[in-house]
Amino acid sequence: MLDYTHVDGLTAADVARLRAVYEPLTGSVRELIDATIRTEVDADVVAAAKAEIDSATARLRAAQKDLSFGIQFGADGDSMPWGNAVIGVRNPTAPPLVIRKGPHGQEGTASSDFYLGAAFEGPPGHVHGGVSAKILDHVLGDAASKPGVHRLTGTITVRYRRLTPLGRLHAEARITHTDGFKTYAVGHIADGTGVTVEAEAVFIEPKWARS
Amino acid sequence: MLDYTHVDGLTAADVARLRAVYEPLTGSVRELIDATIRTEVDADVVAAAKAEIDSATARLRAAQKDLSFGIQFGADGDSMPWGNAVIGVRNPTAPPLVIRKGPHGQEGTASSDFYLGAAFEGPPGHVHGGVSAKILDHVLGDAASKPGVHRLTGTITVRYRRLTPLGRLHAEARITHTDGFKTYAVGHIADGTGVTVEAEAVFIEPKWARS
Repeated sequence: MLDYTHVDGLTAADVARLRAVYEPLTGSVRELIDATIRTEVDADVVAAAKAEIDSATARLRAAQKDLSFGIQFGADGDSMPWGNAVIGVRNPTAPPLVIRKGPHGQEGTASSDFYLGAAFEGPPGHVHGGVSAKILDHVLGDAASKPGVHRLTGTITVRYRRLTPLGRLHAEARITHTDGFKTYAVGHIADGTGVTVEAEAVFIEPKWARS
Repeated sequence: MLDYTHVDGLTAADVARLRAVYEPLTGSVRELIDATIRTEVDADVVAAAKAEIDSATARLRAAQKDLSFGIQFGADGDSMPWGNAVIGVRNPTAPPLVIRKGPHGQEGTASSDFYLGAAFEGPPGHVHGGVSAKILDHVLGDAASKPGVHRLTGTITVRYRRLTPLGRLHAEARITHTDGFKTYAVGHIADGTGVTVEAEAVFIEPKWARS
């Protein structure tokens, strides 16, 4: 199940077409999530909205994958982790993070600029500490991974310097060193005035990928 | 902003009425999120569903809070963290966790049985490691907190023993010791066959709550 080398045979044009169909849907559901949390309309308006939502769900469920999205692969070997809880372009609960590798596409670093709104709240007006941990797990893991092999988190430690406000944020990570199948990385989340949360972690190369 | 002692003056009947209006809406949006990730319907059906979703969003946005839900309080002092990313009954991205304190309502422990589906995926068929960290942050924090004062995470370390399958899961946590304003807790997530992820953390009592 975790053999990421499986190829679904989609061409680049297939992938682009699928993205054009489903990404706007995901964006609309993200807006709906935000509206659902913040709305103050009365019960009759809620009921009307709920009826439309239930109708949309029934349409979408007319044909669907079992259980979860998994990962599909294009013919060029690019992975499509579109259901992923942090970066999935088909997962409305993902911010989603768009992660840059680099600089110059080199391995060992990753960064992202992203926006967290009402859906990511913990303390009033601030990011849930667990959400920061979730994002750092992914960004550090991306820095520690190489094409075709996403290393899995062994242990991560997250330190909270201060509360992170909801809004525009930045995350970045880099490998510090490697030791056999273990890769060590550090990173942080920052708002406009500096670092709010920092993390260090060790990532493990899956056994199937050790050749 | 973090003064949790503010009371919004809602009676128990008000709270029950609001819950009856908004909780079913949240449940419908959770179903829609799952359908959005798993759907394989064609572009014309996606477009029809998207139109209904956009209409529902417009209805809900006719009256809404600024920015985020925050925390409201009932007249009995009970908090309503309904927008919370882990436990929020009005947040469709929350599983949501229903956390039991105890045993016998005593402080110092917390546990929850919950279900994680397609929206929480990382490795195919498995929970995103960051999602496990997010949940443990909250459950340990709940064990470390007392009524009216939710302690904030200082540092959390999460160790992944093996991948956590999507599906029915259990989390629990307990305080190990306290040291002044610091409270230490440990906990884990388990599937049907045992512990998959464990965590330890230190929580800090907010300055405003130190009396």
